[in-house]
Amino acid sequence: MEVKVVKRVLDVNEKMADQNRKMFAEKGIFVLNVMSSPGAGKSTTLEKTLAILKPDLNCAVIVGDICTSHDADRLARTGAPVVQVNTDEFGGDCHLAAHVIEKAAEDLDLDAVDLLIVENIGNLVCPAEFDIGEDARAVVLSVTEGEDKPVKYPLMFRECDVALLNKIDLLPYLNYDIDKARNYIHQVHPDMPIFDISAQTGEGLDSWIGWLKGVVEKKKSA
Amino acid sequence: MEVKVVKRVLDVNEKMADQNRKMFAEKGIFVLNVMSSPGAGKSTTLEKTLAILKPDLNCAVIVGDICTSHDADRLARTGAPVVQVNTDEFGGDCHLAAHVIEKAAEDLDLDAVDLLIVENIGNLVCPAEFDIGEDARAVVLSVTEGEDKPVKYPLMFRECDVALLNKIDLLPYLNYDIDKARNYIHQVHPDMPIFDISAQTGEGLDSWIGWLKGVVEKKKSA
Repeated sequence: MEVKVVKRVLDVNEKMADQNRKMFAEKGIFVLNVMSSPGAGKSTTLEKTLAILKPDLNCAVIVGDICTSHDADRLARTGAPVVQVNTDEFGGDCHLAAHVIEKAAEDLDLDAVDLLIVENIGNLVCPAEFDIGEDARAVVLSVTEGEDKPVKYPLMFRECDVALLNKIDLLPYLNYDIDKARNYIHQVHPDMPIFDISAQTGEGLDSWIGWLKGVVEKKKSA
Repeated sequence: MEVKVVKRVLDVNEKMADQNRKMFAEKGIFVLNVMSSPGAGKSTTLEKTLAILKPDLNCAVIVGDICTSHDADRLARTGAPVVQVNTDEFGGDCHLAAHVIEKAAEDLDLDAVDLLIVENIGNLVCPAEFDIGEDARAVVLSVTEGEDKPVKYPLMFRECDVALLNKIDLLPYLNYDIDKARNYIHQVHPDMPIFDISAQTGEGLDSWIGWLKGVVEKKKSA
């Protein structure tokens, strides 16, 4: 029973996601869905990413949180238009669904956007099940979370196009085997691009942003 | 529609949780539900907790993971009976539900258990919504996750009886204001007991275990 209902919810979501995808394509907007555990560093990564991208791309952000506008406030300081979604209005949802993105996008001037970044709810499980009409998905994994999250939460790593291993500035103080983490990622998603970064210090961000610019360019010229 | 169905699922869960609670009470078992983000340190905290409790209390553990038996393998090394639940069999569920606990408990010799610890799925959202028939709930929050998780995920902190601020050995390397974190916790849950711990180094574990023994004793003598 529960499973059937969940399937129906996901079917409805899939249709809405297709509508979003069509709408974004018509406007020439690339949509990136960024997901992670709570506190893995999505907001700091996006703050830095937006600052570097700004001269080249018109970016906008939709930020999902159950409560508070902390992240939206931080990202708005980059100068990019930011829409905050609090899923508390939607029953405290643990993910962003396609209809929520459609509604949030109404508050943006889509004609002035090249890249729309969606910062999803901090949750390594449920957001991976919900297509929002994005072009690419990124997962941020903090090295403080241990090496084995990719095999414990495989759907997220299977569904995402790129992984960011964040907080590498803390590696000297952790008992963390980064090769083991990479192997686990590639066990569930062979050849997945992985970027080692420290959003705090800025280390490694150039390679990640190079990748991101590449996929946006590729879609534009397609 | 979705909200109605979710309500029905939660109502059914509540009934099953009450049955679990009755069953555990008849056996004189105290049940602790431990929740956190992925990688906050639940397993390491429980490894150390079980080792310290062993001479005084007969402990058993039910470990929830979507995939893998990594955590169960680690906890089994403490000598406590451990049952692994992989929610992949239940559709990749993002939480442990009451019927899952009932089924897992069948694999334990409940007459030989004083304290049953449930290590929930790593998720700061959904597990808080599902009563499993427990006596107490603990949330583990790693200081690497930032200070504001309690206000961003308030249900978890409202529903739990105790908070463990873990990985304090990393504080010298973080830009983290522990008083701010404590204030955020008390903003959503006034007077909530908070223990600063490092499961890695063992710092602070005695106070936490003192609290845990206290609540178990209190229930026994009630």
